[in-house]
Amino acid sequence: MPPQTRAQQRLLIKGGKVVNDDLSVVADVYVEDGVVQQVGPNLNPEPSTGLVVLDATNKLVIPGGIDTHTHMEFPFMGSRSKDDFYTGTKAAIAGGTTMIIDFAIPQKGCSLTEAFDTWKSWADPKVCCDYSLHVAVTWWSNKVKQEMESLVQNKGVNSFKMFMAYKDIYMVNDEELYKAFSCCKELGAIAQVHAENGELIAQGAKKMLAMEITGPEGHELCRPEEVEAEATQRAITIANAANCPLYVVHVMSKSSAKVISNARREGKVVYGEPIAASLGTDGTNYWNKDWAHAAAYVMGPPLRPDPSTPGFLMNLLANGDLSVTGTDNCTFDICQKALGKDDFTKIPNGVNGVEDRMSVIWEKGVHSGKMDENRFVAVTSTNAAKIFNLYPKKGRIAVGSDADIVIWDPKATRTISAKTHHQANNFNIFEGMVCHGVPVVTVSRGKVVYEGGVFNVTAGEGKYVSRPPFPPYVYKRVRQREQVCQPVPVKRAPYTGMVSGTPVTRK
Amino acid sequence: MPPQTRAQQRLLIKGGKVVNDDLSVVADVYVEDGVVQQVGPNLNPEPSTGLVVLDATNKLVIPGGIDTHTHMEFPFMGSRSKDDFYTGTKAAIAGGTTMIIDFAIPQKGCSLTEAFDTWKSWADPKVCCDYSLHVAVTWWSNKVKQEMESLVQNKGVNSFKMFMAYKDIYMVNDEELYKAFSCCKELGAIAQVHAENGELIAQGAKKMLAMEITGPEGHELCRPEEVEAEATQRAITIANAANCPLYVVHVMSKSSAKVISNARREGKVVYGEPIAASLGTDGTNYWNKDWAHAAAYVMGPPLRPDPSTPGFLMNLLANGDLSVTGTDNCTFDICQKALGKDDFTKIPNGVNGVEDRMSVIWEKGVHSGKMDENRFVAVTSTNAAKIFNLYPKKGRIAVGSDADIVIWDPKATRTISAKTHHQANNFNIFEGMVCHGVPVVTVSRGKVVYEGGVFNVTAGEGKYVSRPPFPPYVYKRVRQREQVCQPVPVKRAPYTGMVSGTPVTRK
Amino acid sequence: MPPQTRAQQRLLIKGGKVVNDDLSVVADVYVEDGVVQQVGPNLNPEPSTGLVVLDATNKLVIPGGIDTHTHMEFPFMGSRSKDDFYTGTKAAIAGGTTMIIDFAIPQKGCSLTEAFDTWKSWADPKVCCDYSLHVAVTWWSNKVKQEMESLVQNKGVNSFKMFMAYKDIYMVNDEELYKAFSCCKELGAIAQVHAENGELIAQGAKKMLAMEITGPEGHELCRPEEVEAEATQRAITIANAANCPLYVVHVMSKSSAKVISNARREGKVVYGEPIAASLGTDGTNYWNKDWAHAAAYVMGPPLRPDPSTPGFLMNLLANGDLSVTGTDNCTFDICQKALGKDDFTKIPNGVNGVEDRMSVIWEKGVHSGKMDENRFVAVTSTNAAKIFNLYPKKGRIAVGSDADIVIWDPKATRTISAKTHHQANNFNIFEGMVCHGVPVVTVSRGKVVYEGGVFNVTAGEGKYVSRPPFPPYVYKRVRQREQVCQPVPVKRAPYTGMVSGTPVTRK
Amino acid sequence: MPPQTRAQQRLLIKGGKVVNDDLSVVADVYVEDGVVQQVGPNLNPEPSTGLVVLDATNKLVIPGGIDTHTHMEFPFMGSRSKDDFYTGTKAAIAGGTTMIIDFAIPQKGCSLTEAFDTWKSWADPKVCCDYSLHVAVTWWSNKVKQEMESLVQNKGVNSFKMFMAYKDIYMVNDEELYKAFSCCKELGAIAQVHAENGELIAQGAKKMLAMEITGPEGHELCRPEEVEAEATQRAITIANAANCPLYVVHVMSKSSAKVISNARREGKVVYGEPIAASLGTDGTNYWNKDWAHAAAYVMGPPLRPDPSTPGFLMNLLANGDLSVTGTDNCTFDICQKALGKDDFTKIPNGVNGVEDRMSVIWEKGVHSGKMDENRFVAVTSTNAAKIFNLYPKKGRIAVGSDADIVIWDPKATRTISAKTHHQANNFNIFEGMVCHGVPVVTVSRGKVVYEGGVFNVTAGEGKYVSRPPFPPYVYKRVRQREQVCQPVPVKRAPYTGMVSGTPVTRK
Repeated sequence: MPPQTRAQQRLLIKGGKVVNDDLSVVADVYVEDGVVQQVGPNLNPEPSTGLVVLDATNKLVIPGGIDTHTHMEFPFMGSRSKDDFYTGTKAAIAGGTTMIIDFAIPQKGCSLTEAFDTWKSWADPKVCCDYSLHVAVTWWSNKVKQEMESLVQNKGVNSFKMFMAYKDIYMVNDEELYKAFSCCKELGAIAQVHAENGELIAQGAKKMLAMEITGPEGHELCRPEEVEAEATQRAITIANAANCPLYVVHVMSKSSAKVISNARREGKVVYGEPIAASLGTDGTNYWNKDWAHAAAYVMGPPLRPDPSTPGFLMNLLANGDLSVTGTDNCTFDICQKALGKDDFTKIPNGVNGVEDRMSVIWEKGVHSGKMDENRFVAVTSTNAAKIFNLYPKKGRIAVGSDADIVIWDPKATRTISAKTHHQANNFNIFEGMVCHGVPVVTVSRGKVVYEGGVFNVTAGEGKYVSRPPFPPYVYKRVRQREQVCQPVPVKRAPYTGMVSGTPVTRK
Repeated sequence: MPPQTRAQQRLLIKGGKVVNDDLSVVADVYVEDGVVQQVGPNLNPEPSTGLVVLDATNKLVIPGGIDTHTHMEFPFMGSRSKDDFYTGTKAAIAGGTTMIIDFAIPQKGCSLTEAFDTWKSWADPKVCCDYSLHVAVTWWSNKVKQEMESLVQNKGVNSFKMFMAYKDIYMVNDEELYKAFSCCKELGAIAQVHAENGELIAQGAKKMLAMEITGPEGHELCRPEEVEAEATQRAITIANAANCPLYVVHVMSKSSAKVISNARREGKVVYGEPIAASLGTDGTNYWNKDWAHAAAYVMGPPLRPDPSTPGFLMNLLANGDLSVTGTDNCTFDICQKALGKDDFTKIPNGVNGVEDRMSVIWEKGVHSGKMDENRFVAVTSTNAAKIFNLYPKKGRIAVGSDADIVIWDPKATRTISAKTHHQANNFNIFEGMVCHGVPVVTVSRGKVVYEGGVFNVTAGEGKYVSRPPFPPYVYKRVRQREQVCQPVPVKRAPYTGMVSGTPVTRK
Repeated sequence: MPPQTRAQQRLLIKGGKVVNDDLSVVADVYVEDGVVQQVGPNLNPEPSTGLVVLDATNKLVIPGGIDTHTHMEFPFMGSRSKDDFYTGTKAAIAGGTTMIIDFAIPQKGCSLTEAFDTWKSWADPKVCCDYSLHVAVTWWSNKVKQEMESLVQNKGVNSFKMFMAYKDIYMVNDEELYKAFSCCKELGAIAQVHAENGELIAQGAKKMLAMEITGPEGHELCRPEEVEAEATQRAITIANAANCPLYVVHVMSKSSAKVISNARREGKVVYGEPIAASLGTDGTNYWNKDWAHAAAYVMGPPLRPDPSTPGFLMNLLANGDLSVTGTDNCTFDICQKALGKDDFTKIPNGVNGVEDRMSVIWEKGVHSGKMDENRFVAVTSTNAAKIFNLYPKKGRIAVGSDADIVIWDPKATRTISAKTHHQANNFNIFEGMVCHGVPVVTVSRGKVVYEGGVFNVTAGEGKYVSRPPFPPYVYKRVRQREQVCQPVPVKRAPYTGMVSGTPVTRK
Repeated sequence: MPPQTRAQQRLLIKGGKVVNDDLSVVADVYVEDGVVQQVGPNLNPEPSTGLVVLDATNKLVIPGGIDTHTHMEFPFMGSRSKDDFYTGTKAAIAGGTTMIIDFAIPQKGCSLTEAFDTWKSWADPKVCCDYSLHVAVTWWSNKVKQEMESLVQNKGVNSFKMFMAYKDIYMVNDEELYKAFSCCKELGAIAQVHAENGELIAQGAKKMLAMEITGPEGHELCRPEEVEAEATQRAITIANAANCPLYVVHVMSKSSAKVISNARREGKVVYGEPIAASLGTDGTNYWNKDWAHAAAYVMGPPLRPDPSTPGFLMNLLANGDLSVTGTDNCTFDICQKALGKDDFTKIPNGVNGVEDRMSVIWEKGVHSGKMDENRFVAVTSTNAAKIFNLYPKKGRIAVGSDADIVIWDPKATRTISAKTHHQANNFNIFEGMVCHGVPVVTVSRGKVVYEGGVFNVTAGEGKYVSRPPFPPYVYKRVRQREQVCQPVPVKRAPYTGMVSGTPVTRK
C-alpha cells in the first residue's frame, strides 16, 4: 500500500477531549490528506461519504507519542536486538506512539554517512510509523566533521550522540567531546550524550569479576549512580564551554537528574530524557534470585537499586527539570542475554519500552497526580517535537499538523505482560503492572493503524522525517548569547618593563 | 466612548511575527468585535472599508502583558498610592500591559465583600484596560469563610492573599493560614501569600531603631532575606498540609526563590512571582547617600543588597522554577515617602513597575539571552492567564482570544526615566536603564489604545474580568491527588491488654 | 555510701588503648579521688596496696558517654515514664554512659525554679551517675526571664528548651521564641528547641482522625518530616535574628538534618542532636500489624518511614554536620501506651535508648566504617561536654578529668533485647539488633560501678553537675560577632523637603 | 649552627593562653631539647640559669603554623619561583609558620625518586624551619608504582599529587588517576589533586586568544569555576571508586567547595584545602587596568571574580567542610610575570602567601567572628598534622610535642605590604590589608627564631620530617570499609537455557 493511498482516508474524531500541552478542550477533529484540517465543535465535513468517524466521547484525543530513543535491530555486543523496525514500530503503534527516533551508530573509524544509510536501509522497508535517525559520533577527525555537516544539510539530521562510556568501542574523550560539541553548535544540531564514566566502568567491572561477582548485580555495582552523575556534570561543563545545547539521553538516577536540574537553574541549555524503564521500575531486580529475570533488566546505564528513583524522576519530569521521555528500547531475549551467563559484562545491554512508555507514564505520572494530562502530552510528544524541530507538525493537534493522533481512554486499565505485548521479545520489564490509560485508536498520518487491538499496518508505510537544524526552541537563546554574552578584553597600557625568565636546567 | 463602540473597530495587523508561548510564526492577525478572528498568512478580511491596518513588519505581535500584582490608589501606611486606576492603567498600556490584577484588602474584622465592592467602585470608572481583583484575607471567622465562598461564586474571584507580615495590621497566624488555605482548596481558589515573618520584622525594626539606624537601610537590615525564605518555607509546608495550591507574591530574594524551586522539585503545587523591581534593580540603593533616593526603593519585602539577585531570579524565571511576573506597583512620591524621614518604619512601602515591567524583562531576560521571546510571552502573560483561569482568552493570540495585543519592536531601545514615564509618580526605580524592546502599538480588546506614543483611551472603558474557580492548569493535579493519594488506616486486631495511666500529681 | 567514700577508690586501668576525640594511644590510666591523675605507659602508682587494677588489653578506654537528652519519671500525657532516675541511670551505666542531662519542665504559667527544684528532688536521691538538668521555657513573662537569670547564676543551668509543638501545653509562639532566645544570649545559655510546627500537628491529627486513621501510623502521617524541617528552619532564623546559639534536640529526619547542615554552612551557630532511635531504627514500625509493636515506637517527632534516614543521619554525624547524640529516653510500657489504643494522639510519646545508645552508634557508625573511634568519642561525650561547658572535666581522659571511664570491647558483640536490658520497660525498640562494641567496665567518678555485667551502685551517689554560662566552644564566636558584625547607620544629610501623607477615609 | 646546638636552648613561655584545637587554657610552657616538657600553671623549671623566659601575658601561645602547600624555587613555565627554601622558610617564620610541605615534581617520564632527591637537595641546606615533601605523579607505569612504594617505605612520603590540568605537561587522564589512587590506597598514602579540567583550559585558552583576549583576565575566562568544580567532582568519584582518601589542593571557588562539602555529607573521605589567596582576595584583580597588578594574581586555578568567594570559603573552613589551609606560595616577580605580557598563557602561575597566611586567616576568620581561636589552630596546623600523620608531634602544644610554638598577639594589627614583607618577591597580593593577629615570637623546635621582628635563623637548621603511611585520622575509616562494606555475589542457580548470539555482519 503506497503512502499516497493512506492520505486518501478522511477521518472525523468526534466528541473527545482534545489535549494539547497547553490546554484541553472538547472538540471534533477532522483529518484529510494525513493532516489535521479542522478542530472545533460539531464539525460536519463534506462529503459524508467516505468519511471514517471515530467516536471519542469520554476519551482523550492526544498527539501520538514520540519515542526519542530506540535501537531497533541494533547489532550490539555480539548479538542483535530482537525488535526490528517492523515489530518495533508495530508495538509502538499499539502503545500510542506514532514516531520513533533511532540511532545510526558507526564503528570507530567508520563513516557516519554510511551508518546513516545503513540504518535507513534497514528501516525504510519496515517501518509502520514515522521515524527519524540520530547519528552517533564515536571518533573524531576532519572527515567526521565534514560528514556531520553533510548529514545536517542533506539528510535532515539535527542531533548527534556521543558516548562517554563503552571504552574502546564507542567512547570518546574530553577533547573529542569538546570538538563534537563545537561542531554541533556551528551546525545548529543538538549534542546528545550517553553520560557514564567509561573508564570507571572498565575498572569497576574488573574489580567485580575479581571479587567473583559475575552475575547481573555486578553490572550495577561496577557503575553506581555517581559514575553517571560525574559524566553528566562533565558533559554539561564541556557543552557549556562550547556554548552548545546538550541533551542527556537515558537519565537513570536521582544523582544525574539533580545535576541536570541544577545546571538548568544556572541557565544552561540542557535537556534530560528519562525513559520508561527508569520511570517505571528499578534496579532491585538485579538482585533477583532468578538469573534470567535479573539479566533481563541489564541496560546501560543501569537501573538504580534506590527504590525512590522512579518517583523522583517523575517529579522532575512533572516539574519541568526533565523534558522528554524515550525508552532506549533495545530488546534481547533470554538466549541472547545468556551470552553473559558467566560474566555480566557480556550480557547484551537493553530492555523493552517502546510499547509501554505511554501507559507507564500515565500510570505513574498522571494517575498518581504528579502531572496532568497536558504535561503528559508535553513529555510524551510536544517537547520532543520542539527540541528536534518537528513542532507543530508533530506534537500538537492543530490545523496543519500531521494527523498522528491517539484516542486515549484514561479510565480503562490494562495489565502489561510479555504474553500479550506486541514486541518480539519474550520478557517484559513491566510484567504485571496495571496501568490506567489505554490507547484505543492510533492514527498515523491520517490512517487508522490500530483500533481496539487490531492492526491495520503495512511494513514501510512510515516515513523518514527530516529535521532541520537550529530548532528555535533550543537555539534562540544560544544564538543570542553568542551575540551578547562574549567577554571583551580589558583595555590597558602595554607592559613596558623588563622581561626575565630564568632559564632552568633541571637535574 | 462606551465599550460597545470599541468592539466596532476592525483591525488587521500585517506582516508581524506572532509570538505565543509555544511558537513564533509570521502571520497576519485579524480582529473584530474585540476578538481575534483569524491568524494566518496574507489575510484579506472583507470589507476593506473601515479596516484599520497596522504594519508589524519586522516586529513581534505578542499577547498584551498581564500584571498580576498592582496596588492602585491604595490607602496604606497613612497615605495613598499615587497612581490611581486611571493613571495606573494608562501607564500599563504605554508599557505593553493590557490587564492588571489589583488587590482588595479589608482591615482586620471588616468585610471582604465590602472591600471588593469598594475597590471595584474605585476601578470601574477609571480603568483604561481590563482588570481583575484578588481579595486579601486579613483575619479569620466563619463570616470570612462565607464571604470567600460568595466572592468565588458570585464575583469571579479565584485568588485570596494572606499576609504573613504587617503584624497587628494584616498578618495572620499559622492557624489562620491553615484555615484560609483549606477554604481556598475547597473553593477552587489559589492561595497567595506575602511571605515574610512579621514577628521578626517587628523585633528587627525595634532593634535597628535602638541602634539609631533610622534610615532606609534599616528597612532591609531589619528583615534580611532569610526572614522571607523562612516564611516562604512555612507557607509551602502549611499549604501542602492543606493540599492547597500556593502562589508566592513578590519573590525578592535568592533564598526565597530557592525554597520555591526546591518545593517544586518535590512535586508541590507552588508558583513564584518575581516582580519588575526584583528582576531589574537591587537593594544596594538603600545605602544611597541621598535619603530621597534610598527611600524611593523602600518596599516590602525589600530589594536585596546582593547584586547577583536579579540575574539569579531571571535564570529561574527562564528555567520554569518561577512562573509569572507582576510589579507590586504601589507608588508614593517623595513627599509621601518623607513620612518616614526620621524612622524607616514609617516610609510608605511601594515602588513603580506597571509601565516598565515588559521592557525590563525583555532587556534583562531576552536581550541577555537568558530566555527567548516565547518564554517572555509565557512569563508576562500566558502563565498568569493559565494560573488565574483566563486562558486562552487572555495570554494567547489565537482565534477566539481577546484582542489584547502588543506590537513589540525587539530591536528598538528606550531609556526609562521619570521625566518621560506615564505614571503619576516623580521617581522611577529604573531611571536611566536602556531597554531593548519597545511597545509600538497596544491594542486592548480590539481597540488601538496606544500607538507611537499617543494614547487613545477613555477612563472606564476597561472591564472587570471574572475568573472562574478551579483553574485546570492548577487544580487537575490537586484534585487527582485528593482522590488517589490519601493514606489509609492499617488493618489491625484491636489491642486487648491492660490500660494504665499513672495519675500524676504535679507539685 | 556517701560520695567521699567513692573517691577513696584508687584505680589503675592497664594496657588499653586510650581513645580521645583527637587521638588514640596505648596507655595506662591512673585514677585517684575520682579524678584522672596520670595517663601514660607503664604506670606504677604507689602504694600498690588498695589499688584496683583493671586489665584493658586489646580494649578501648574511652570517656564515659554523656546522654544529652533524657526524661526520667516524666509526668506526661496522663502517665509517667517508667524509668526513674534510679533505673534510668543504672541502665545508662550498663551501656557505658556516665552522665545524663534531663529536663525540668514547668507547666505553662508555673515557676521554672520550682520545676527545677522538683526534678532535682526526684533525681538526687536516686541517681547512680552524674546528671544535670536543662530547663524548659513553656511560656513567657518577666518572671520567667528573672527565673532564667537566677537559674543560670545560682543553679548551674546553661541551657533552656523551648517547644514549638504540643500546642496549648508547652508550645510557645514566634514572639516568645524570640524573647527566650534573646534572654539566653544575654545570659550565655544555649537555646534548645523541639522543632515541629505544633499548629500543623494539631490540624493534621484532626484530619487523620476524621479519616478514621486512629492507629500509630496516624502519628507519623499527621506530622510528616516537612513539619519538622519547617520548624527547624524557623527556629534557626529566629535564633540568628537574636544572635543566639541554637541546639536542635532530637533530629529525626533527613529534611531537618539538611536544614541544620545548610545553616552551618552559612556560619550559623547551630548544633543538631540525633538520637539513638533516629540513628538505629525507623518509622516503618508504625505500620506494623501489631498495635503494641507500632505504639511502642511512638515519640515526637516521630521516626521516619524513609528507611535511608538512619544512615543519612549517621553520615552527617560522622561528617560534623550533626554534633552530639542523646536518646530522648522516655519509656512507657504497653499498658501505658494503651491509653491511646483508640486514638493515636493519646499514646504517651516516648522510647528507650539510654542504655543502648553507645552500642547502637558503635554498630551503625564505627563498625560500618562511617566514623572512627575518635569521632565516636566526640559524638557520644566530648562534643556534649564542650557545648554544655563541662569540658575537659567530662568528655576527655586526661590528667585532671573526672574519672568517668568505660572499658570498651570493640570486637565483642551483644544482642539487644528487652529480656536482658536493665531499663524498667518491657519493650526495646532495638530488639534483636546485634551490636559490635560492648562496655566491659564502667567507672563513674573513679568508682567501678559496673563490671562484667555486675552492678556496684547505690542510689544517690551520682552528683548534680553545675554548668557555667558562656561555654567558650559556643560563645566565643557569638561574642566576637556582637562586637564586630553590627550594622552602622548610613551618614546622610537630613531630608528637608515637604512631607505629605494623604489622610484617607476608608469606606 | 648544627641542630644539636639548637636543642640545648631551654625556654619558659610564661603567662600566655595556650590554645589548642580543643581548648584554651592559661598556662606556662616549658621547653627543653626542642620538645615541650611541661604545660601548666606556675612552672619553675630548674635550673633557672640558661633558661630563656618569654613573657606571653595577654597573648596566645599557639602551635606553629603548617603550610601544606608551597613551591619554593620551583622551575616552572620557563622561569623559577623567586622564594627559595631559605627566603621562603624565613618568611614563613616571620608569619608564624614553622613547617612547610613542598612538592617534588618530576617531568613526565622521569623518576619520582630523583625528583624527591633533587628537591631535598635544594631544601636541606637552606631551610630555616622543618619541612616535608609531597611528590607528584605526572605519568604512570610500573616503575612509577614501584617508586611510590619506595618513597612511602623509605623516604617518609605519605602523599602524592596528581594534576588534572597542565595538559601535555603534568596532566594525567582518568585511567592514570584511578591507578595512582589505587596505589595510594594500598600504600596508605593520601591522594592529592590539582582539580581543573585541563582539556577545557586548553580549549578555552585558544578561544580567548582567538578573541584577542590576551591579558590576565583571559586566564580566568578560559577556566571559569565550573572547570574546577567539574574536575573536583570527577576526582572524588574516581577516588571513591578506588576507596582512596582524597585531598583537594587549592580550593579556589564556591562551586568546588560545594562539591567537596556535598561529598563529605555522603561520607566520602575527602579534604579540601583553601589557601591564603582564595581566603583573602579575589579574581576581580584580573580586570585591573594595570597589567602588572593583574598579572601578579595569576595562579592556577585562578582566583574568582565573585567577590563573595573568600567569605564563603571561610564559612566552610569554620564549619568543618574544608579542613586545612596552605598557600600555593610560588612567587614570581613582575619581570618573570612579563614573560606573558602578550599572552596570558605564558604568565608564570603563582602568588605569595607563606608569610601572611596566619594573619589573613586570623583577620578574615577569627576577628570577623566566623571561627574561634581553637578552630584557627585546627585549620592552620592541627588538621594538617592529623591528615599527614604528624600529630601530636606537630599541631599541638602538649607534653612530648615538638616545640614549634608561636606567641600570637590577637589584639595587635599589622599592615601587609611588599615593602615590609620578608619574601623575595616585590609584590604582595594582600598589599594594604590591615590584619589583627600578629606573631610576636616564633619558636622552631625549641629555638627562638624570630622575636619582635628580629630573626635568629641559620640556613639548613630546619629538618626534613618523615611522614609514616596510614595516618589513623584518615585511614581508620578507609580500612574498616574495606573489611565491612564489600559487595557479595547473589547466590543463584546457574542459568541452563540456550545461548544464542546472532552473528552480525555489518555493512
